[in-house]
Amino acid sequence: MLPIAVDAMGGDHAPGAIVAGALAAAAQGTPIVLVGPPDLKERVDVGDLPLIEAGEVIEMDEDGGRAVRRKKDSTLVRAAEAVRDGQASAMISAGNTGATMASALLRMGRIKGVNRPAIATIIPVPGGQPTVLLDAGANAEVQADWLVQFAQMGSIFSRHRFGVASPKVGLLSIGEEPGKGDGLRKEAFELLSAAAGDDLNFIGNVEGRDVMSDAADVIVTDGFTGNVVLKTLEGGLKAVVNGLLEAFASSPEYKEHAEALMPAMLPLYSTLDPETYGGAMLLGVDGVCIISHGSSSQRAVFNAIDVAREMVEADVVGEISRAIRPE
Amino acid sequence: MLPIAVDAMGGDHAPGAIVAGALAAAAQGTPIVLVGPPDLKERVDVGDLPLIEAGEVIEMDEDGGRAVRRKKDSTLVRAAEAVRDGQASAMISAGNTGATMASALLRMGRIKGVNRPAIATIIPVPGGQPTVLLDAGANAEVQADWLVQFAQMGSIFSRHRFGVASPKVGLLSIGEEPGKGDGLRKEAFELLSAAAGDDLNFIGNVEGRDVMSDAADVIVTDGFTGNVVLKTLEGGLKAVVNGLLEAFASSPEYKEHAEALMPAMLPLYSTLDPETYGGAMLLGVDGVCIISHGSSSQRAVFNAIDVAREMVEADVVGEISRAIRPE
Repeated sequence: MLPIAVDAMGGDHAPGAIVAGALAAAAQGTPIVLVGPPDLKERVDVGDLPLIEAGEVIEMDEDGGRAVRRKKDSTLVRAAEAVRDGQASAMISAGNTGATMASALLRMGRIKGVNRPAIATIIPVPGGQPTVLLDAGANAEVQADWLVQFAQMGSIFSRHRFGVASPKVGLLSIGEEPGKGDGLRKEAFELLSAAAGDDLNFIGNVEGRDVMSDAADVIVTDGFTGNVVLKTLEGGLKAVVNGLLEAFASSPEYKEHAEALMPAMLPLYSTLDPETYGGAMLLGVDGVCIISHGSSSQRAVFNAIDVAREMVEADVVGEISRAIRPE
Repeated sequence: MLPIAVDAMGGDHAPGAIVAGALAAAAQGTPIVLVGPPDLKERVDVGDLPLIEAGEVIEMDEDGGRAVRRKKDSTLVRAAEAVRDGQASAMISAGNTGATMASALLRMGRIKGVNRPAIATIIPVPGGQPTVLLDAGANAEVQADWLVQFAQMGSIFSRHRFGVASPKVGLLSIGEEPGKGDGLRKEAFELLSAAAGDDLNFIGNVEGRDVMSDAADVIVTDGFTGNVVLKTLEGGLKAVVNGLLEAFASSPEYKEHAEALMPAMLPLYSTLDPETYGGAMLLGVDGVCIISHGSSSQRAVFNAIDVAREMVEADVVGEISRAIRPE
């Protein structure tokens, strides 16, 4: 297997946490190539990991598309080029999401026949199978037929990522009955119903309350709604967890009881922790591209690399290519 | 004050919980008139509450608009007519949301100058001021200038409902910078910026993570996104609470510690409980219309009546009318 290209400079805790995660993955036998500045090894311990040199870094707050066009020697652009040129099997970044998408799209290109790539993100489901939600923000506006491709790509991702044999695909809307929702949803419902078959298990409309449940394995929506849903859940869970922690800390006695309860709460906490899943995947580009959360720790990077390896080994890109353009 | 018309037959626990909530509110001095079938008092104890008779009931799963057109003698239609005809100061229902909207819209009518009524729902914020989110589902598709009216109406609601002197209004989008989002958001951002002033404290774009936070007092969006956000949060919180309860019940020892912690967790639980806020308000119709959750208990109905009374006393409808059509 070709090495996985890891953007050493992307994310709030770069390069330290990123390189540490890469080293941990390498220790488990996954081939890695770092992408970073020439002096990276003077800044952090990189072990004997190889390095693709890049002279520039795209910052978190830069406009993604513009930055990729201007910073042609950035770690993100070089990582995408490494995949394009057959030096790497996948790229991973916890940096600027827009720039990660743009570099993958502009350097790797789209899979033939794919209208638009989409970000497939993973929503944890306490006590159940996680839900794959796409698009989580690549396309603020979409057309109904793009949603059919999102459904196809999301199904392939769900199969390989979570081993779901026939993923249930729901269309996010505001009512379960066909015909509920805006014009886009009504048209997409028709197209998805027509496309349903052996490879696409379309179960109809689902609602917001189904996102964090076992109702569907894959939920398709436009990138505006998907991004709002993802961030609303992140914010909501954070508010609740903070509220609980405050309550637990409100007296020494409560603190003791809470500590005794920690082992029971740990599995739930771990399920809800975004780091558990290692990141989102940009589906529809001609190569594996994993987008990690900006706050990624060493563990999140390690998990993201693991996901990238799985997606490469399962040839998810090849499978999408065959599904979108059948012989 | 004219009595508040309570739809005795709307909601999963009607008429029992509804009438019990109405009786509790009446005991506190709020004038009430029930709207229900002629034999209501044979089915539940209605005390000495007056009754407006209605021969039909709109079920939860009926199409709202169609049901209102067909069932002209339904409790919902009669409640809205009572407000229109000056027999009641407000209407409340925990029944079919679409039919509640339709009956209010068709019988009370829109406030002059209002493009479209919007559902203002209340998102709890642990440790902070709740956020008013609108539209939560009245309009699946909106135009940019409607969002400006939603901002105006939401500000008036926030002022009277929560006593916020100058409510911070955010436009829900997928990035904080101006120009982020789809075409609708870009246009709305311009219009909201132009409309900002003494009565409209527009703070710019907000993101999903700001919904359950103190970032904004009022968040405006289209009814599709708003409904998805509301239900996503409901589902997500339910999943987390269920996960916690399961963890707490997983051993007798854990159960004891959890019980000892309950007093500490109660304020958070109460904040997150949708019943605490009593329901959403349909803003822009020519009368006070409160839409309660279908699962409303006696306590939720009591709180909804309290909100209706406050909104009547504050003359929120008159204030919206003056704001939308200034002299």
